[in-house]
Amino acid sequence: MKIVVDAMGGDYAPEVIIKGAVAAVCEYNTEVILVGDEAKINSLLKKNKYSGSLISVCPSTEVIAMHDPAAASIRRKRDSSIVVGLNLVKEGKADAFFSAGNTGAVVCGATLGLGLLPGIERPGIGIVIPTLKGITFIIDVGANIDPKPTQMLQNGIMADAYVKHILSKANPTLGLLNVGEEESKGTEFVKETHELLSHSKLNFIGNVEGRDLFSGKCDIILCDGFVGNVALKVSESLAEAMQIFLKKHLLSNFIGKLGAVLLRNNFKKFKKEMDYSEYGGAPLLGVNGVVMIGHGRSNAKAIKNAIRAAKEEVERKFNEKIMEAIQ
Amino acid sequence: MKIVVDAMGGDYAPEVIIKGAVAAVCEYNTEVILVGDEAKINSLLKKNKYSGSLISVCPSTEVIAMHDPAAASIRRKRDSSIVVGLNLVKEGKADAFFSAGNTGAVVCGATLGLGLLPGIERPGIGIVIPTLKGITFIIDVGANIDPKPTQMLQNGIMADAYVKHILSKANPTLGLLNVGEEESKGTEFVKETHELLSHSKLNFIGNVEGRDLFSGKCDIILCDGFVGNVALKVSESLAEAMQIFLKKHLLSNFIGKLGAVLLRNNFKKFKKEMDYSEYGGAPLLGVNGVVMIGHGRSNAKAIKNAIRAAKEEVERKFNEKIMEAIQ
Repeated sequence: MKIVVDAMGGDYAPEVIIKGAVAAVCEYNTEVILVGDEAKINSLLKKNKYSGSLISVCPSTEVIAMHDPAAASIRRKRDSSIVVGLNLVKEGKADAFFSAGNTGAVVCGATLGLGLLPGIERPGIGIVIPTLKGITFIIDVGANIDPKPTQMLQNGIMADAYVKHILSKANPTLGLLNVGEEESKGTEFVKETHELLSHSKLNFIGNVEGRDLFSGKCDIILCDGFVGNVALKVSESLAEAMQIFLKKHLLSNFIGKLGAVLLRNNFKKFKKEMDYSEYGGAPLLGVNGVVMIGHGRSNAKAIKNAIRAAKEEVERKFNEKIMEAIQ
Repeated sequence: MKIVVDAMGGDYAPEVIIKGAVAAVCEYNTEVILVGDEAKINSLLKKNKYSGSLISVCPSTEVIAMHDPAAASIRRKRDSSIVVGLNLVKEGKADAFFSAGNTGAVVCGATLGLGLLPGIERPGIGIVIPTLKGITFIIDVGANIDPKPTQMLQNGIMADAYVKHILSKANPTLGLLNVGEEESKGTEFVKETHELLSHSKLNFIGNVEGRDLFSGKCDIILCDGFVGNVALKVSESLAEAMQIFLKKHLLSNFIGKLGAVLLRNNFKKFKKEMDYSEYGGAPLLGVNGVVMIGHGRSNAKAIKNAIRAAKEEVERKFNEKIMEAIQ
């Protein structure tokens, strides 16, 4: 098993990427190919005291930056870590690809480079979020911002397979994100999607609302990539703001500061429960290969967990499950 | 000044509505007309020890429930508190209308009953949220889930007037909610809206992302009613989930319980800063009359503050400002 890791992608690359990769090979005994600036990678491997044989380096000279235009960069930067890394998967030299870099570029590069699975018209990005009743899988959080209802159904089928075979939850419930629970609610697009889902084999529970994201009402929440992207980023923004507000009010007086010290461990456990890095990467579903996308701000633990998630997809032959389900 | 208050709308109606109305007339010296079940209202006024002349009752026998279909209910329930209340404004017997009831019914009833301001094609619901740098006004959070770009521009102009004249912030900045900051990002609809905003007189700062909602990057965030509704409800859901997670981890051991008692006042201040009820109602902009919508879960303080916000719109002749701006 070989996982390609884009050493140059992410806000804290290459430092945290190398750190996470070293942690992953030690913990999961999987091989990792680091793609990027060879000298920097080797120096960071030394710094992380890794000299084993599980990590190899594939040099690439270009980097697609976080805000570079996706399609144009994929076409022009042929020696970028994303293009070179995806090619290793395409050529069968590796089993999966992970990047915490430019999401649009990874989606575009994977779609063009690896192609799509039969029956899938567009890929979708899924993500696991913590809820009051465990976890929920949301798809799509930004790969396809203007999908057709048939593509929404395809995303639903892929998410169902993911939750079944990777998150090991039998017969997952699926809700369609809407502005109200009633069938009559929503835009024409959402109503058409509702109709398709109603006649599918999915365990469709009907419309759910924004308030159901963190309540854990269903196992899968389906939405278009525009709405999903906004919902995800709003959540991150609010979680951050709440932690800043809380800190401000705790540290505003002596008793608060004392309490904050006393409660350090309780707050740590709270932060851990809310922490995206526990779940690692977000799978790019629908492409003909295993591709995992990391948050730009991924820390080493998130990188490690994303590599684990990619490994599981390969081991469980996940794309075969999608192809069986989509037929 | 007379404000009509729907005594029957909201999850805790009529109890908290009456309580909030009594608090409002005492604090702001404004007249309130309570619409709904006369016997219940009078009994609750007695319970709240109010016998003054600032509150009068307008009886109505029907109630539009929270999940009743909006348009059909407005047509059929002619003696509902929403229809009767809006008629008082239409007939010039009152200056503003407030309801914490069925939002869709209020939007529909106000649009049909009061009509729209010249130059406005559809109304929009705005809402004030707390951010790291003060407050931000988001429009639309659900009145128009499938708007045209021209209607987005109209909402932008109305929001600009609201922030200037009601929230007293000069030259407010406006951002368009999108999946990325670059001009090239987004659906055709968002790109067309971007184009219109660029050529308007608004202080348009370009695209903003979901993560900018709570960062306070701009004074106004513009989005369609579908995305705004999801963003708002996701935020409520996450804020609730985080408070439950926090409580769980604090109360998980003795030291945590002790700390929670010690920090009670700090947590109270934190909750107050995150509390929507501080800002009261959400104005329904664009209708030919002052209409304020409350959260279904509004408490008495939120009701009181919504009545104050309605009073300010009337006093400052806000709809005239919209008409000046829209020309």
